[in-house]
Amino acid sequence: MKPTKNFASDNNAGIHPEIMKAIVEANQGYAPAYGDDPYTQRAIAKFREHFGSEVEVFFVFNGTGANVLGLQALTGSFNAVIAPETAHINCDEGGAPEKFTGCKLYTVPTKDGKLNVELIKPLLDTIGNQHHNQPKVVSITQSTELGTVYTAEEVKVIADFLHERQMYLHMDGARLANAAAGLGCEMRKITGDAGVDVLSFGGTKNGLMIGEAVVLFRPELAKNFKYLRKQGMQLASKLRFISAQFERLLTNGLWLRNAENANQMARLLGAGLEKIPGITIVQKVEANGVFAVLPREIIPAVQKIYPFYVWDEANSVVRLMNSFDTTAEDVLAFVETVREAMLEKGLL
Amino acid sequence: MKPTKNFASDNNAGIHPEIMKAIVEANQGYAPAYGDDPYTQRAIAKFREHFGSEVEVFFVFNGTGANVLGLQALTGSFNAVIAPETAHINCDEGGAPEKFTGCKLYTVPTKDGKLNVELIKPLLDTIGNQHHNQPKVVSITQSTELGTVYTAEEVKVIADFLHERQMYLHMDGARLANAAAGLGCEMRKITGDAGVDVLSFGGTKNGLMIGEAVVLFRPELAKNFKYLRKQGMQLASKLRFISAQFERLLTNGLWLRNAENANQMARLLGAGLEKIPGITIVQKVEANGVFAVLPREIIPAVQKIYPFYVWDEANSVVRLMNSFDTTAEDVLAFVETVREAMLEKGLL
Amino acid sequence: MKPTKNFASDNNAGIHPEIMKAIVEANQGYAPAYGDDPYTQRAIAKFREHFGSEVEVFFVFNGTGANVLGLQALTGSFNAVIAPETAHINCDEGGAPEKFTGCKLYTVPTKDGKLNVELIKPLLDTIGNQHHNQPKVVSITQSTELGTVYTAEEVKVIADFLHERQMYLHMDGARLANAAAGLGCEMRKITGDAGVDVLSFGGTKNGLMIGEAVVLFRPELAKNFKYLRKQGMQLASKLRFISAQFERLLTNGLWLRNAENANQMARLLGAGLEKIPGITIVQKVEANGVFAVLPREIIPAVQKIYPFYVWDEANSVVRLMNSFDTTAEDVLAFVETVREAMLEKGLL
Amino acid sequence: MKPTKNFASDNNAGIHPEIMKAIVEANQGYAPAYGDDPYTQRAIAKFREHFGSEVEVFFVFNGTGANVLGLQALTGSFNAVIAPETAHINCDEGGAPEKFTGCKLYTVPTKDGKLNVELIKPLLDTIGNQHHNQPKVVSITQSTELGTVYTAEEVKVIADFLHERQMYLHMDGARLANAAAGLGCEMRKITGDAGVDVLSFGGTKNGLMIGEAVVLFRPELAKNFKYLRKQGMQLASKLRFISAQFERLLTNGLWLRNAENANQMARLLGAGLEKIPGITIVQKVEANGVFAVLPREIIPAVQKIYPFYVWDEANSVVRLMNSFDTTAEDVLAFVETVREAMLEKGLL
Repeated sequence: MKPTKNFASDNNAGIHPEIMKAIVEANQGYAPAYGDDPYTQRAIAKFREHFGSEVEVFFVFNGTGANVLGLQALTGSFNAVIAPETAHINCDEGGAPEKFTGCKLYTVPTKDGKLNVELIKPLLDTIGNQHHNQPKVVSITQSTELGTVYTAEEVKVIADFLHERQMYLHMDGARLANAAAGLGCEMRKITGDAGVDVLSFGGTKNGLMIGEAVVLFRPELAKNFKYLRKQGMQLASKLRFISAQFERLLTNGLWLRNAENANQMARLLGAGLEKIPGITIVQKVEANGVFAVLPREIIPAVQKIYPFYVWDEANSVVRLMNSFDTTAEDVLAFVETVREAMLEKGLL
Repeated sequence: MKPTKNFASDNNAGIHPEIMKAIVEANQGYAPAYGDDPYTQRAIAKFREHFGSEVEVFFVFNGTGANVLGLQALTGSFNAVIAPETAHINCDEGGAPEKFTGCKLYTVPTKDGKLNVELIKPLLDTIGNQHHNQPKVVSITQSTELGTVYTAEEVKVIADFLHERQMYLHMDGARLANAAAGLGCEMRKITGDAGVDVLSFGGTKNGLMIGEAVVLFRPELAKNFKYLRKQGMQLASKLRFISAQFERLLTNGLWLRNAENANQMARLLGAGLEKIPGITIVQKVEANGVFAVLPREIIPAVQKIYPFYVWDEANSVVRLMNSFDTTAEDVLAFVETVREAMLEKGLL
Repeated sequence: MKPTKNFASDNNAGIHPEIMKAIVEANQGYAPAYGDDPYTQRAIAKFREHFGSEVEVFFVFNGTGANVLGLQALTGSFNAVIAPETAHINCDEGGAPEKFTGCKLYTVPTKDGKLNVELIKPLLDTIGNQHHNQPKVVSITQSTELGTVYTAEEVKVIADFLHERQMYLHMDGARLANAAAGLGCEMRKITGDAGVDVLSFGGTKNGLMIGEAVVLFRPELAKNFKYLRKQGMQLASKLRFISAQFERLLTNGLWLRNAENANQMARLLGAGLEKIPGITIVQKVEANGVFAVLPREIIPAVQKIYPFYVWDEANSVVRLMNSFDTTAEDVLAFVETVREAMLEKGLL
Repeated sequence: MKPTKNFASDNNAGIHPEIMKAIVEANQGYAPAYGDDPYTQRAIAKFREHFGSEVEVFFVFNGTGANVLGLQALTGSFNAVIAPETAHINCDEGGAPEKFTGCKLYTVPTKDGKLNVELIKPLLDTIGNQHHNQPKVVSITQSTELGTVYTAEEVKVIADFLHERQMYLHMDGARLANAAAGLGCEMRKITGDAGVDVLSFGGTKNGLMIGEAVVLFRPELAKNFKYLRKQGMQLASKLRFISAQFERLLTNGLWLRNAENANQMARLLGAGLEKIPGITIVQKVEANGVFAVLPREIIPAVQKIYPFYVWDEANSVVRLMNSFDTTAEDVLAFVETVREAMLEKGLL
């Protein structure tokens, strides 16, 4: 019997039961549309508990929407946004950042999905040159697309470097909860407190049905954001049903429990695979993703049972994502499936 | 006690219980993200039952997204889109159509929110002139922003006129169900069969939580639509939860029951208000909206109990929208509230 | 013999001999490209003589480029630009303003091509409403597309009104010289001194070959303009040849002599036509354009000899533009041609 | 005495005397604006002589304008344009391609500025994947930004590869004349005959004052180009003065004489530098540019006399461009200057 779960992506999971409950409970009578409702007010208050009383928060539909609008709030079309080559904004958003902001992306290869000042510096050469887009924002992903995590200090070094140059730090936090869980710290420590100016806060990958949030740590950046959101086609009419999910996620540590489970399962998975001779883990397992080199011959057989993505065809690196509801049983069954596939191919 | 319902907008209502049930039931195990799931396949099949086997269907987040992407599929940035002055794309989408398509809107005043060939013709004068945006699409709203409805024949006359000129007909069908219910016909009769090329099919205003659909009646127009949707920030990762809502809406006539109730309540409301001396109904009640002139003095008092919008300040015209769950009791209580407010002001 | 001149547009004329001489003289040896040359420095100095030492000046290719970039320097894509319905940015720029700035134009009918505070006010209703583009700039044309002129006081009233609201005043000065000549004042009196924030300064219609200038009266607005110009495809490599034209135009009053001649010829033309029974001048002749109602029957015959545009088909209003090199002989011959055409049709 | 010429860029040169004569001669009387004039008709006819009777030609202001509009004619915003990392569209157009077309650039490093099928293939992996921009156009530069040239056969191999995949080949021909002169062939052999779909034809770098042309080899691609040009702010009002330059350039082989001179001087320069011990020529000298490694210490001293650009700081590679009016005397004096600088630093 084929298992119902897989390791393809944390967005293959469904809705966490408590989140579903919040949706059902929000379905009481009428509420003003477009955010002028008590659910939205309470959800914003929850964000302020976690990120500081001065933050401004706007709910949007998806991660691409959150990233693009956040970047638009920081740029003119003549600017450039610096990001790692592997960034979601570069690889997986269908060109929405360029189309919508008009900016150019300046990208740089990294070994682990993480930027640092040394990597950023050479991309600033064009500053002041009228022929080139002007770098204004650096966008980092936390946890990264490679399952690694920036420490608060690493974020801060980048932020300080940028702020000295009148530049901004944007964070794609589609998996921010996993990063905070991995580091064992509050979310604000690795965002606003470390100098992040604008954050895309992920909900969907951590158990929501639909919903991401843009968190602006400087009120002046938020002044026109509601107009950007509307023009960016990211304003929900029945917004209460997105807000109610966030309110619940940020209550009683649900965000943390979900993320911790996913991270723990990733560690279990990484450890289990590593024990199999011939399999290498190629990135530190610091959040909920595992990047492993699997023997090329076994991949199709395993994918038939557990869908997952080959991340780097040339080096046979696969990506294995864990979710809020992945169980140790799921992980161990997956490791066993891998082992059997290797035996079958005479690799063990 | 303040009533829980109002007449401000059909998007102030919540989620229809059957739709909620569909969401809950779709929350079973894992499903591929981004539309490669059985819920989406079944929802598309439902659309083909209603609109014809050849239609292509794409689910998006909201009405602005549906309209903008539908228009983008039909235009280059040098084109113009013709619409009534009152069109949602002109008045209520924050400039998203211009921003995203690059097109100019050519708008024209109407008496009832409806376009016709005589109104369209003068806007075609710029065709062939290199200094001007080239009209390529006419966008009509069904039912209109003024609660009126195009007959199938009226749609067809416009579509034929446009097709003779290699132009397209776009329909904003945020309330298409209400129009079909009002006319007592199948939805395809007033869309694809009447020559509509691209339709925004509304879900949210008819009982969904979140979700609209773009229906393309010519397969060649759909070729690149999935890329437009992604770049347009309208592709949901957990798409099954939008699809499942649409599947349910189009099953066992739920779409029609919801729309018919809203329309019936609008007629009841219109008839009730009309009986009050000094109140005039200024647009035909053909769908779920009622446009009435209320004495200016009573508006604030009534709004305090039942929020609604003043549509035309100068003429004291108000808009009263009815929903899938508006009841006769709600309507009669509202009419009574109006009557009392008039008595209080000595107007009766 | 068909005359070599016409009244179709002031851009049907050629290059003024002194301007041509400047081009020829600038063709000496090598010069750095993209504006880092002495011609450009001297031309900018000339602008500062005329408009004030603090202005920033950028040369571009054409009027659409000047207008679009000027507006982009003042807006975000969520803004709206208010303009008269007859504005060049609305009617004759192929939708470039919307495409490039992302803004929506809010337009208003006028009787004489001129805006005023009463006309502007109702368009500010959307301020603060998240569903609508936010008005940020008013764009006026000086002299207007209808040949009329704003006095310094009229400009100032609008500018003050806008500045109180943190809004900007943009002026399309494609024919600014004609306005200043008509008013008998310095150009700065009706631009920067009257509160204009950004000016498109026209060269081509006043005797240049190619070239317009964007004049920014607030240095902070100019900070990123060079990047906008480059991205807006308006940076010439051999810029010296545009700059040299402007330097000459602004030296020894050439700009004024050219404009005065065109204006004088317009007055002569208006006076001449007005004397013919059955012909009405419908706009004040305050610059170099004449708007006259001609009997519909004579138009084709006259156009065959002297090309010109019918401005308002419905009312048989024609537009007759005069140039730096129009002569009294040209004007009188034209008037005579009209008279003969009327005689031929039995209208005199 | 400082020499008046330099090797910084072929756009530091002035206007060729014959071109200047054409401008002066076009300044006769009035001509219809915006291209409806005999100069433009004759210039287009000249292009058809050189490129084939079926080509469509549109004159624009500058190279960025030509490239961006040409690419826009071939793409929707969801597409990607493939180009070498060194492409002008990637490095020197201020992000105009992304801003105006909405497309993403997919770039690839090359050793000599030239693409080939092997380099292109891996960039097509995203075809059909809804998360990614869809490659539709490959843009090559002829001669390249590194002074190298594609043979007709090399162009054809790329074009055939693309056309089999319903893709297009765009050529940035800012220096097409130099490539044709270098190969000793007609320009059509390495453009339309080799499968190029859209060409930016350079004028300014080959002796014009201002002006580039977009040549479309498939009439169906030209259908809406005039609207794109207008909306792209690239339509000159007094267009005759651009057209007249092109007419002259393409008459009696002026284009070829100019290009051949520049190429010959480049070869002379390359040969002269190569003889100096310690100087290496790092790209084949196939057009009018020379790329040489100069000892780092001598660069400032030489630049003081002859401005030029350092192309690759890390490797001390400089770019030396030759123009239509560079003379052997200029070249020899430059080589001598280099030699003296080396002596002075004790390097010889």
